[in-house]
Amino acid sequence: MPVEPFVGRRCLVTGGLGFIGSNVALALAAGGAHVTVIDARIDRHGSNPANLVPDGDHHAPDGRVAVVEADLGDVDRADVRDAIVSAEVIFNLAGQVSHVDSMDDPLFDLSVNTTSQFRLLELVRRENPGASVVYTSTRQIFGKPRYLPVDEEHPVAPVDVNGITKYAAEQLHLLYHEVYGLRANAIRLTNVFGPRQRLRDDLQGFLPIFVRRALADDAIQVFGKGEQERDCLYVDDVVECLLLAASAPDARGQIFNVGNDERLSLGEIADAIVRAAGRGRVEHVPWPADRDAIDIGSYFGDSSKAKRVLGWEPRTSFADGIARTIAFCRARHQWYL
Amino acid sequence: MPVEPFVGRRCLVTGGLGFIGSNVALALAAGGAHVTVIDARIDRHGSNPANLVPDGDHHAPDGRVAVVEADLGDVDRADVRDAIVSAEVIFNLAGQVSHVDSMDDPLFDLSVNTTSQFRLLELVRRENPGASVVYTSTRQIFGKPRYLPVDEEHPVAPVDVNGITKYAAEQLHLLYHEVYGLRANAIRLTNVFGPRQRLRDDLQGFLPIFVRRALADDAIQVFGKGEQERDCLYVDDVVECLLLAASAPDARGQIFNVGNDERLSLGEIADAIVRAAGRGRVEHVPWPADRDAIDIGSYFGDSSKAKRVLGWEPRTSFADGIARTIAFCRARHQWYL
Repeated sequence: MPVEPFVGRRCLVTGGLGFIGSNVALALAAGGAHVTVIDARIDRHGSNPANLVPDGDHHAPDGRVAVVEADLGDVDRADVRDAIVSAEVIFNLAGQVSHVDSMDDPLFDLSVNTTSQFRLLELVRRENPGASVVYTSTRQIFGKPRYLPVDEEHPVAPVDVNGITKYAAEQLHLLYHEVYGLRANAIRLTNVFGPRQRLRDDLQGFLPIFVRRALADDAIQVFGKGEQERDCLYVDDVVECLLLAASAPDARGQIFNVGNDERLSLGEIADAIVRAAGRGRVEHVPWPADRDAIDIGSYFGDSSKAKRVLGWEPRTSFADGIARTIAFCRARHQWYL
Repeated sequence: MPVEPFVGRRCLVTGGLGFIGSNVALALAAGGAHVTVIDARIDRHGSNPANLVPDGDHHAPDGRVAVVEADLGDVDRADVRDAIVSAEVIFNLAGQVSHVDSMDDPLFDLSVNTTSQFRLLELVRRENPGASVVYTSTRQIFGKPRYLPVDEEHPVAPVDVNGITKYAAEQLHLLYHEVYGLRANAIRLTNVFGPRQRLRDDLQGFLPIFVRRALADDAIQVFGKGEQERDCLYVDDVVECLLLAASAPDARGQIFNVGNDERLSLGEIADAIVRAAGRGRVEHVPWPADRDAIDIGSYFGDSSKAKRVLGWEPRTSFADGIARTIAFCRARHQWYL
């Protein structure tokens, strides 16, 4: 991990008890950064205190990461405010990520994903304008791709509330760079998988659903023929990208689409998971009507800008990543299943 | 005015005490529609009870338009809720439009322009799903144009908070058409001028500033050489477009860029206003630094989709429109200056 630029520095990870956030926080802490996490502890969003237990250690968190349990937007609270104002680097991963939840409760999605982010950025630009901020956005803002692979110039056309609320927050980061010189950028992530992902329910995309069902020796349901392609990314590769984005001066004010050159169909992904787990089976079922309305077909991103500007390269094959994910889930099943 | 489709129908105009909203409400009421207005009475946003005084009548509003004084998002209030749920057609014009205000208070801008709109649309799709909704969006979401004229395919790149918050609301209208079949569309307006525009201060763009200064026999300040072009649109042409958008079946789920084929530089616009007023003068001044950061150069839109689908055509020249505007302002100066 490229943690050298963060040794001894104060790093804040918002959503740091969540899937990707906890992986970022642990990598930074292991590398010698002073890490604070702000996390609203919303179980449905993937927040899990067990996420801060380092690899190879099956005990409770060891205190190397300070945790502020609060909504990010609660900037009137002294501990939230202090954590934000004192941070040198902010990895801004807090958010609601379930597309279905965003349609069920658009106001809550807007509050968490946009209003809280506006509050954070207002505080940063007024009282901590020298901080670097890396915001994790999502490929979901592109909707159904007009062309593949999807680069940063691809038109935005959200197909769910989540895409709308995340895009607004992303754009505020870029605007505050443009207008106030804030050192902010945005990483639009593809489907991410790996250790510490929420597995209990169907709220974090298809990958954890597939993994859970395989581990339970259940059928993995693939809608239709499962021919839509995806570029899944192992979480360690994402963490590396976020660390590079926080330290590369040329990355300021930039958007990066971050995906994988390895592309697999949903059917291939399901088969690979069953193979890695040694359990479960793949079952093709008709499209449910409510999913059809928000389906986007194939998606894969063009990561060449991230490679060029950040010097980043994804290094984990899907087969390797899923094997590590399944080993992790088996070792810690009581906290994730 | 193409008001025939609205005769005897229940029409709601949000922001109906504001500049464009009041022109819509009066046109509908004069044409025989049952009109209700929801308006938060925020003076800075252009809300003015005098706006509902019909043309040729210098007395108080005559009650042909029912007014609910409330924030649009206050859907727990019975009167707000009733107005929304009982409307057959909703002209959705409420919002904060000042770019400078949106940068000064991003949270307020988000609350008014996005959160309240989310509340409105949730209520409509759940309890009044047959209503038609015409949302007025803004050219501001495009930022600095990459090419001219700007059509509906032009990439979105907001250069202020207002562009971000308006775009989120616009996208929710289109999403609810896509997912729930709501009869919603969005009209992205260029610079609009005409009777009932707020003139007291500098919050509604450059046109009312120019008109106010000319009427006061002051200098109209034009930044730099004033060569940036604009396609200004007289408010009656906008009202006609909104009425057509509410009744054309092919308009559902669509975005329309609505501007004018007549393009004038800021210098030419200032000159024309001084000519029409018979007072004031044009003064070229250096760019203020805080404006430079959010300037977009020339802008004019491509309205061919609106013309094709809606059968709309702008009919008022800038010279005619500004003459009528100035006559109106002189007749009612006590309510606007």
